[in-house]
Amino acid sequence: MKTRDLLTPIGIFLGFVFIFTAIFLAGGTKALSGFFSLSSILIVLGGISASLVVGFGASEIKNMFVVVKQTFSRKEIDIQELIDYFIDLLRGASERGMLLGLEDRINRFQDPFIKKGVSLIVDGLKPEAIQHILEIEIDALEKRHARGYEMIYKAGEAAPAWGMVGTIIGLVIMLLQLDDPSSLGPGIAFALLTTFYGIVLSQLVFHPIADKLAKQSQDEVFMKRVIIEGILSVRNGENALVLREKLGSFMTDEAHSRLLEIGMKNGESLHEKG
Amino acid sequence: MKTRDLLTPIGIFLGFVFIFTAIFLAGGTKALSGFFSLSSILIVLGGISASLVVGFGASEIKNMFVVVKQTFSRKEIDIQELIDYFIDLLRGASERGMLLGLEDRINRFQDPFIKKGVSLIVDGLKPEAIQHILEIEIDALEKRHARGYEMIYKAGEAAPAWGMVGTIIGLVIMLLQLDDPSSLGPGIAFALLTTFYGIVLSQLVFHPIADKLAKQSQDEVFMKRVIIEGILSVRNGENALVLREKLGSFMTDEAHSRLLEIGMKNGESLHEKG
Amino acid sequence: MKTRDLLTPIGIFLGFVFIFTAIFLAGGTKALSGFFSLSSILIVLGGISASLVVGFGASEIKNMFVVVKQTFSRKEIDIQELIDYFIDLLRGASERGMLLGLEDRINRFQDPFIKKGVSLIVDGLKPEAIQHILEIEIDALEKRHARGYEMIYKAGEAAPAWGMVGTIIGLVIMLLQLDDPSSLGPGIAFALLTTFYGIVLSQLVFHPIADKLAKQSQDEVFMKRVIIEGILSVRNGENALVLREKLGSFMTDEAHSRLLEIGMKNGESLHEKG
Amino acid sequence: MKTRDLLTPIGIFLGFVFIFTAIFLAGGTKALSGFFSLSSILIVLGGISASLVVGFGASEIKNMFVVVKQTFSRKEIDIQELIDYFIDLLRGASERGMLLGLEDRINRFQDPFIKKGVSLIVDGLKPEAIQHILEIEIDALEKRHARGYEMIYKAGEAAPAWGMVGTIIGLVIMLLQLDDPSSLGPGIAFALLTTFYGIVLSQLVFHPIADKLAKQSQDEVFMKRVIIEGILSVRNGENALVLREKLGSFMTDEAHSRLLEIGMKNGESLHEKG
Amino acid sequence: MKTRDLLTPIGIFLGFVFIFTAIFLAGGTKALSGFFSLSSILIVLGGISASLVVGFGASEIKNMFVVVKQTFSRKEIDIQELIDYFIDLLRGASERGMLLGLEDRINRFQDPFIKKGVSLIVDGLKPEAIQHILEIEIDALEKRHARGYEMIYKAGEAAPAWGMVGTIIGLVIMLLQLDDPSSLGPGIAFALLTTFYGIVLSQLVFHPIADKLAKQSQDEVFMKRVIIEGILSVRNGENALVLREKLGSFMTDEAHSRLLEIGMKNGESLHEKG
Repeated sequence: MKTRDLLTPIGIFLGFVFIFTAIFLAGGTKALSGFFSLSSILIVLGGISASLVVGFGASEIKNMFVVVKQTFSRKEIDIQELIDYFIDLLRGASERGMLLGLEDRINRFQDPFIKKGVSLIVDGLKPEAIQHILEIEIDALEKRHARGYEMIYKAGEAAPAWGMVGTIIGLVIMLLQLDDPSSLGPGIAFALLTTFYGIVLSQLVFHPIADKLAKQSQDEVFMKRVIIEGILSVRNGENALVLREKLGSFMTDEAHSRLLEIGMKNGESLHEKG
Repeated sequence: MKTRDLLTPIGIFLGFVFIFTAIFLAGGTKALSGFFSLSSILIVLGGISASLVVGFGASEIKNMFVVVKQTFSRKEIDIQELIDYFIDLLRGASERGMLLGLEDRINRFQDPFIKKGVSLIVDGLKPEAIQHILEIEIDALEKRHARGYEMIYKAGEAAPAWGMVGTIIGLVIMLLQLDDPSSLGPGIAFALLTTFYGIVLSQLVFHPIADKLAKQSQDEVFMKRVIIEGILSVRNGENALVLREKLGSFMTDEAHSRLLEIGMKNGESLHEKG
Repeated sequence: MKTRDLLTPIGIFLGFVFIFTAIFLAGGTKALSGFFSLSSILIVLGGISASLVVGFGASEIKNMFVVVKQTFSRKEIDIQELIDYFIDLLRGASERGMLLGLEDRINRFQDPFIKKGVSLIVDGLKPEAIQHILEIEIDALEKRHARGYEMIYKAGEAAPAWGMVGTIIGLVIMLLQLDDPSSLGPGIAFALLTTFYGIVLSQLVFHPIADKLAKQSQDEVFMKRVIIEGILSVRNGENALVLREKLGSFMTDEAHSRLLEIGMKNGESLHEKG
Repeated sequence: MKTRDLLTPIGIFLGFVFIFTAIFLAGGTKALSGFFSLSSILIVLGGISASLVVGFGASEIKNMFVVVKQTFSRKEIDIQELIDYFIDLLRGASERGMLLGLEDRINRFQDPFIKKGVSLIVDGLKPEAIQHILEIEIDALEKRHARGYEMIYKAGEAAPAWGMVGTIIGLVIMLLQLDDPSSLGPGIAFALLTTFYGIVLSQLVFHPIADKLAKQSQDEVFMKRVIIEGILSVRNGENALVLREKLGSFMTDEAHSRLLEIGMKNGESLHEKG
Repeated sequence: MKTRDLLTPIGIFLGFVFIFTAIFLAGGTKALSGFFSLSSILIVLGGISASLVVGFGASEIKNMFVVVKQTFSRKEIDIQELIDYFIDLLRGASERGMLLGLEDRINRFQDPFIKKGVSLIVDGLKPEAIQHILEIEIDALEKRHARGYEMIYKAGEAAPAWGMVGTIIGLVIMLLQLDDPSSLGPGIAFALLTTFYGIVLSQLVFHPIADKLAKQSQDEVFMKRVIIEGILSVRNGENALVLREKLGSFMTDEAHSRLLEIGMKNGESLHEKG
């Protein structure tokens, strides 16, 4: 399931509200306009883009917007639903055999990774082969994810550096035209703006988004490991309560003991088969 | 057992006492008021919060206060008590069999992880399955812990960066209003305050708390590994002195040899069974 | 296949365009000449070269230009073509035996690593020996690549440091000749130029190129791992659909399911042999 | 054996001698007094202590002095003596059996880890069990050591940060009281002192001591791995020259070949038993 | 073979030439003398030595000069010669048996590690024991090397820190004696010199030398891994072309295919024995 996750844009918005409030409190409305400079924005954003173009391939750059959009939504599989599905599979397998019992149920859970795992069982592959194929898929997924968040992270490293480049440009120009001492203050102020933009972009936008993407990738990989455990349990025909124990171990203690009570109410027992 | 651990708030209090004393020694009481600025606090704390909202999910942010509260208490299991309990389990198993002997004793030690391990033995699972399930639980626990202390750590990284953002804002405003040269000193002083807040928050509050949480997580995982060793020894019916040797290896040399003497007094011997 | 990849020079060019535009916007054409200084360029580039000569061997330094040229082209093997080739090998092996069936087909795919793998099968080596030999080759390749991008990365670390050395030299000379206060501004401006060059070289040229080379190395190693999987499947005579499943797991979900449809249209089935 | 190792205090003393000499050369005796400031020392040492109290547990803080004292002595086991002892054990085992032959010799080498290993052989444990127990002990030891040197290392990270906090406090107070321009110089000088203290403490005291402790821990663990190799060789009744080859591999080439000559003189041969 | 490698001293010399040229271009011959200050050199080199004495043991410090001398020479074993030697061993073993055939040939290759490996075969040890003993030796070697280059690396970290200490000392003294404003410029210039020395020492001398030593260690370990592969192939009596394939995998593609052609000309074939 995908649900919307608006925390990322809310956080960025909040950050700018705090910055504007601080500027307003310290310098009044008049000061606000002094913090906007098109050429400063140009040098910081332009420099970051140039660094990314040098360092990344065309397909990765195209991929960037897809990746960033991902932070606005949250994919989540409920472990409990997952366990229920696997127990349903076990029931099917014990009633109608591994092939027929599972084939019907492939489409009951809308997740391509689970479907693939179940179809590998139906195709009669050995447990080690199933595990190997599914783990290859996780590795390839992790690598694709990593390319995404590394690019955003590099943007976050480039931002303050280009900010400093802009500040040095501003200082050099000001120092070369030192005829008018009264322009000294505004000149330094102007030069400092690019550093300001660079740090804010890095700290409020790029680094937190890269962190969020890295965590989303970790969560997805973690959930896929839960799924592999379940698929292998189904393939090996383990009993339902062991499966609950195993997958439940991925949850917090409270959620897990609630889960086991449900299993016991349903009359499952460890001694069914094992 | 949970005992209170007040070192974290004491340390933070001490830090502020040192800072105030230093300010007082250098500038007298008059200087103290110069170090308090609501808008500086606003920009640093607001900026940190915004960065965290961008980078973390809602559930992780809610979890933050629970996590921080954890640094105020210390959970500790005494290895010696643990060994006594496992030897009691061994005695039970040898007297009344693995099932009956252990089932009575499940509730004698109040720790959900140990209870789970013992109940997995009672349920008749194989040693490898028990180890696999318990290690999954440790991995999931480590991941949950890591989310907690990484958030605090990120706050500690964001703090000085937002401090610098505030300082640049202060400098820019001051430089744009350079009409009155006498305001130059207080202007720079004011601008420096956010950097001051940022470094103090990072060095006195966020980074040390994140370090403490990471160590608490390490300790809990370490103790859970001791427990797994013990559970497996019970499952395999190892003799009591080998179990003492094994678990005692997790302790310091002095504590360990004291422990072995106790075992020998109790008439345990390595030749009982092994 | 090698295709040209001009993003690296385009990105460097773009970066300089942004820098010149920013200088022009802030100081007009007159300012542009103030940013060019032969002696500043000399100290930064000379210092970087000297650091590299101290730290690297002659063969590695000679190798540097070859390595940098690599960022201008992209080697790519299409996984789909690769799978088709392996299925062709499987067909050959099932029709005419491992030796004859594969020997004909060795030259059908122009890649030395694949050729080597196939010839090891033809030579009758065991799967473990084939895997061991091919993995040694990957390790040696990774090491050779790493030497290349580490040198560029070190250049990117040395650049801002030598920039700072140049700035300190400029400041010291200016401060020692403080007779003429009017030269203060241009003196500092001039001193800042080396830092400017150092940061731009590091951020726009060296670090992104090193990142790109590291990613290209990762991609090449990844593709070679796909090839090893395929070679071993051919050696073990696995059936065609399992091979598609396995190698397809390295691809994205969409590409992979498109691939399986093709296999099914071709009448392949998991039950052919397995 | 423990021998005194006075290099750590000598190095710290040397460092201060160099600093005082440099101050004296640049500013004469008059300048020396300007570098001593009780309140600067207070803020740096106080801040570091507060950070450590926040981040570490009571037992770890108590342990700190024990840990630091350790850098003043060096524990060393001579590999050659160790090999002689193990060969003595082998002789004992071949003459009087594993139990009697080793039991006499347990106390001939004064090291608790070796004694433990030998007594585990005498107790009749299997090689894998012995190895497992001894490796648990190494892991627990490494963890205890790490806690010690991490604390010192954190102190070294906190020192320059608190130095900067003190410098900002000094600057703010000075800037707020800018009435008297003649106090500007001494004010900045005074503010810089805490940064000076912070860097010296970090670079001369905390970081090098933490590095030394980390290396001492590495050495101890390394020696314990040599001991495990030897204990397992004794347990498996390997022949004397193989044991010399194996343990000798941990030494430098020259020391090792000298060692083998001794073995050959003693009439040991690889063909004795193997 | 050892060949001289003068790149390290040449690079350091080049670096100083660039620095002097830059100083000369910017300030003329008069400026050159301003960059030499005995007390600045004293504080930087003295501080670095003091930090190393605190953090390293006596034997490691004595070892430093040996280690640094190593960067002036290059030890190289030609893989092709190595392969020829191993094939000669295989021939000897097939003609006269493992014991006699190899014993003659031990001294034909002047490398203690290879000699040791061959003598372990002659002594009749099992492949796993040979591999274990040779890998222990590699581990011990890596640790000894690491101690060497870590010390140089630490010197490179200490250098700019002590440079900053010197700069603060200079600034404090200058600020305390602010009576004469005309001394302000030369005072700051003088203070900056220690930072200048610190960065140059770190960037031109210590860090590149540490990098070079780390790479030399990597290369030596890599070559020793090639040798272990060869020794085990000889021990297991593998055929000559498989041995060429295996060791050749450590080389570049071009070198490797040249090598295989030679083998084929010599009439070797994979079907000889395998």
